[in-house]
Amino acid sequence: MVDSAPEVAVSADRTTLIPKLQTIATRLRIESVRATSEAGSGHPSSCCSAADAVAAVFFGQMRFDPQNPQNQDNDRFVLSKGHAAPLLYAAWAEAGFLSKSDLLSLRNLDCDLEGHPTPRLPFVDVATGSLGQGVCAAIGIALNARRLGSGYRTYVLMGDGESAEGSVWEAAQAGQYFRLDNLCGITDVNGLGQSRKTQLGHDMEAYARRWKAFGWHAIIVDGHDHGALLEALDEAQKTTGCPTMILAHTLKGKGVPLMEGKDGWHGKAIPKGAKLESALESLEKQIVSGTDMPTIPPPPVRVASDVLQGTEIPDPAYELGDQVATRTAYGAALAALGSVNSRVVALDADVGNSTFSEVFESKHPDRFYQTYIAEQVMVGAAVGLASRGAIPFPSTFACFLTRASDFIRMAGIGGIKANIKFAGSHAGVSIGEDGPSQMALEDLAMMRSVPTCVVLYPCDGVSAERLVVAAAAHEGMVYIRTSRPKTEVIYDNAAHFAIGGSKVLRESNEDVATIVAAGVTVYESLRAYEELQKEGVSIRVIDAYSVQPIDEKTIVHAGLQTKNKVITVEDHYPVGGLGDAVSEAVAPHGVTVTRLAVREVPRSGKPEELLSRFRISTAHIISAVRAQIQSDS
Amino acid sequence: MVDSAPEVAVSADRTTLIPKLQTIATRLRIESVRATSEAGSGHPSSCCSAADAVAAVFFGQMRFDPQNPQNQDNDRFVLSKGHAAPLLYAAWAEAGFLSKSDLLSLRNLDCDLEGHPTPRLPFVDVATGSLGQGVCAAIGIALNARRLGSGYRTYVLMGDGESAEGSVWEAAQAGQYFRLDNLCGITDVNGLGQSRKTQLGHDMEAYARRWKAFGWHAIIVDGHDHGALLEALDEAQKTTGCPTMILAHTLKGKGVPLMEGKDGWHGKAIPKGAKLESALESLEKQIVSGTDMPTIPPPPVRVASDVLQGTEIPDPAYELGDQVATRTAYGAALAALGSVNSRVVALDADVGNSTFSEVFESKHPDRFYQTYIAEQVMVGAAVGLASRGAIPFPSTFACFLTRASDFIRMAGIGGIKANIKFAGSHAGVSIGEDGPSQMALEDLAMMRSVPTCVVLYPCDGVSAERLVVAAAAHEGMVYIRTSRPKTEVIYDNAAHFAIGGSKVLRESNEDVATIVAAGVTVYESLRAYEELQKEGVSIRVIDAYSVQPIDEKTIVHAGLQTKNKVITVEDHYPVGGLGDAVSEAVAPHGVTVTRLAVREVPRSGKPEELLSRFRISTAHIISAVRAQIQSDS
Repeated sequence: MVDSAPEVAVSADRTTLIPKLQTIATRLRIESVRATSEAGSGHPSSCCSAADAVAAVFFGQMRFDPQNPQNQDNDRFVLSKGHAAPLLYAAWAEAGFLSKSDLLSLRNLDCDLEGHPTPRLPFVDVATGSLGQGVCAAIGIALNARRLGSGYRTYVLMGDGESAEGSVWEAAQAGQYFRLDNLCGITDVNGLGQSRKTQLGHDMEAYARRWKAFGWHAIIVDGHDHGALLEALDEAQKTTGCPTMILAHTLKGKGVPLMEGKDGWHGKAIPKGAKLESALESLEKQIVSGTDMPTIPPPPVRVASDVLQGTEIPDPAYELGDQVATRTAYGAALAALGSVNSRVVALDADVGNSTFSEVFESKHPDRFYQTYIAEQVMVGAAVGLASRGAIPFPSTFACFLTRASDFIRMAGIGGIKANIKFAGSHAGVSIGEDGPSQMALEDLAMMRSVPTCVVLYPCDGVSAERLVVAAAAHEGMVYIRTSRPKTEVIYDNAAHFAIGGSKVLRESNEDVATIVAAGVTVYESLRAYEELQKEGVSIRVIDAYSVQPIDEKTIVHAGLQTKNKVITVEDHYPVGGLGDAVSEAVAPHGVTVTRLAVREVPRSGKPEELLSRFRISTAHIISAVRAQIQSDS
Repeated sequence: MVDSAPEVAVSADRTTLIPKLQTIATRLRIESVRATSEAGSGHPSSCCSAADAVAAVFFGQMRFDPQNPQNQDNDRFVLSKGHAAPLLYAAWAEAGFLSKSDLLSLRNLDCDLEGHPTPRLPFVDVATGSLGQGVCAAIGIALNARRLGSGYRTYVLMGDGESAEGSVWEAAQAGQYFRLDNLCGITDVNGLGQSRKTQLGHDMEAYARRWKAFGWHAIIVDGHDHGALLEALDEAQKTTGCPTMILAHTLKGKGVPLMEGKDGWHGKAIPKGAKLESALESLEKQIVSGTDMPTIPPPPVRVASDVLQGTEIPDPAYELGDQVATRTAYGAALAALGSVNSRVVALDADVGNSTFSEVFESKHPDRFYQTYIAEQVMVGAAVGLASRGAIPFPSTFACFLTRASDFIRMAGIGGIKANIKFAGSHAGVSIGEDGPSQMALEDLAMMRSVPTCVVLYPCDGVSAERLVVAAAAHEGMVYIRTSRPKTEVIYDNAAHFAIGGSKVLRESNEDVATIVAAGVTVYESLRAYEELQKEGVSIRVIDAYSVQPIDEKTIVHAGLQTKNKVITVEDHYPVGGLGDAVSEAVAPHGVTVTRLAVREVPRSGKPEELLSRFRISTAHIISAVRAQIQSDS
């Protein structure tokens, strides 16, 4: 019954609904213009073009609880054209969640109504403002409805200039592949970009051809005609087997004569004074009805879904000395986690047989999302899924996560709400023959650049399994770096691994140097230990499996015992990786770091040859220790 | 006359050409299979599907000097599906440039025939192996022909799985926009990805719809039918006003019964022994003609083009104390450079009125390439342009360069051949009210991660102009970071700025601390100097405008004079930026670094409020100095 509410609302008396929507749209314009003028910056022209569409979606179509924007079953709205943020804020004020006076604090330091929407606001699921990302998140939000068995629908408002981003077409193909008929996009085709007319201008058919070619139902409408907008939204709701894109022909700055349809008004507030007064006066005249609001239908009835919320999996079952790749252990642990926790989902970009997410897929096919070779929508969908309660593990080769670097950056704006567990396999030169295009040597820097991101880098099967579990249990973003080659199991199955921890693998009172390693370089360090032991030289070896946060206490303690010096060794470029992490942690204690890292673009070769060629092998660790002994003496 | 040579060659007696091409294709398969088996890894099945297309393009269509792959006017071939590298190497062996015996050193450490193609090889313009990038580079290579007035044509071979990358559709729209009828793509639709069937399988019409919707001429052919391939290539050559995409229906592993059309053979070499013998035996049987080669037509006649090669522009003309944004100075210098050097080109992603590349556009519209909001193809095209002799300056907001992070990573594989000058504006929290989505706080880490990349970060108009000129003169990749707010001109117009240099702005024998700053934090440091002077405390202030390479000598010298300590301050996250660069440089000298940087996700607000809120302002520098004095005493 509740499910049929929108039908009733929309088909009720349109002759009374339409003027109400027109008036709401005008009020949204007024608030957007006023707020940006007050702030002295912002994008009123981009708000004005989309105001009618937003009014129609929010107050003529969506089913939601305006006082509880996070209700699990609310229809969702994503503002992919994030620069129209004031319009979104005005809509939530219109719905009664915000007070209209708050809108005038737009862009102030201590107001959450920022220049572009962030998840600091309870009605914003994902940060937008980098174009072409909201539509990818919407894919994940729509997939999440399927995961939950919820009837909520997802709406996403895009800009036309934004359609130039390749990520939009990754989202398009994902929408087609997943047959997301619970997803409806609206493109605000106002024809003007930031610096000029868009490439396609108002060629509505050109847009329609593209969306249709990517398998969507496409509808062209006059974006300022509420009757047409409502009909298109109804049609979208009735369309099965594919998503719908409503292409709304609009004018930038609509309703404000000063800027309507005019280039040169992108990202400019109307100056306060005569110009603002005149703009507001024109808008006020466009109010055609009273202030009575249409009824907002409640969200669809919640489907009772008892979800598994387990966080423990059976202990790893390796023998010490077993040879197992951390990526293999990752896949095993992830699949096991999936069996105890139904929030856990996995995404992969056609390399599941390399990252071993395929183990999860075979056990939990309904919670595995294949995006094919499209890392941006893989990550964007993960952001969307996480925003609605899933715990997504997107995985690919670590180097190809850089393809989604901007998505990771934007996800980071969500802070701990971005509860995503990235997994990057094939880290570093140790992958061998495939060559530099497949080697991740900057991924630690990229992931560490997200302030709240935990960065984990296990060296063996046991630590890999344990850290996958720790990642899932942690609230917030985590990155797990895995390696291609098999490595020896060195930890007992019962060993404990904590975010922020490390393991001291070799230690004595006679240690002359401290080696901090992670992943494959742990083994090089252990071999260096053995070699040096033969000469009667003792060194400390620390496995810094938690690169961020780094185990400052343990490393500083070791460094202070070895003449205020530490040697780091990592299968990564020197920038932003283990060496920099350690260096910053120890600096306040007067400890300095010698960094062994890959210092030039590598090449194809055998893994052991490459570790040697790029100076992160046992021999180089030994040399660094000897150099330190010499300088100390 | 030479220009019409291909017509003659192609239309010559096809009844004799076709069997020759069939035989060449078979030999390419044999070499690809043999080399990967010898290497023990690689992608023979992906080579076999595309062998007929490569044979047809190289030996039935392209005009080039096989002994001089870098000839300016050779038709170009880009292997966007880089994992088919052995096929490319075999083609160049077939053309006589490589010896066939070299092919068996594939993937060996000291052989340039790597797992994926890199520009270490003279016939490889751009590194490929991260999918969806070669086609973006091809856009730039085709644009370069227009820049030079050369008649060369550009061919790009793509995989079908690769078409899932959004960057492919950015390239598609750029090809349409620039009307690149000198560009011809071939998609090897073998229907199988790495882990499974591709999303579209062999639905050739679905591919055609997409390419047509993006304005390309699309031709579907049997990719193993040389007659059909030659006709399609002819048709592409005759097509005007848009690029052509030939969609070749193929079988993965074609010609080798063991793997033909079979899933599970991606990225797997055939084991040596019986399986390899059987594969080679089947292939040998497919040789239908002798070993006589078709004639390769010479490249089109060189168009004499006297290009301007100047590297000097007039001195900057500011007054000390002028207020000018570094982004504005960037635009002015770039436009001036364009007037003296015709290799200089600019690209932008619809923010030219913010980055000030619009100044270049207005003066040199024929060398300005607008990619709209599509940063991947902007960077990819720049990589292609650079590979053919242009000096491209792609620019956008620095944060949106992260959208092309994987392209920048791949460009870096080209080393100094990747002669690209990236410009990122709107760095850091100092942009103010637009909020975190628009603030670059990880760009220094991203660019420093390219081992050969120079990273420049000017603070005023004079240094900005000088560093743009230095960037252009430097052979290799450079990143120029500019700021949004106006800053005071502090340098004399005649001042000199060198890559690897710095400026000591304040210095005395009584300095108690060294501050290393760059960009907007230079001004915070100078204000801290003034404040501390009032208390009789002297500090050294260094403008580290060259972040990579960093001026180790000057900073170490200063650090040693201030009790082995340095304070860095940057409008960037602490990861991989100025602090880390300085830290690594000074560590060998026992100097440690206190880093002031942005340590949490920022928010909207006024620039000066944000510098303060995120602890990189004058007050925080003063606090850090005081803390250092206290710990020293």
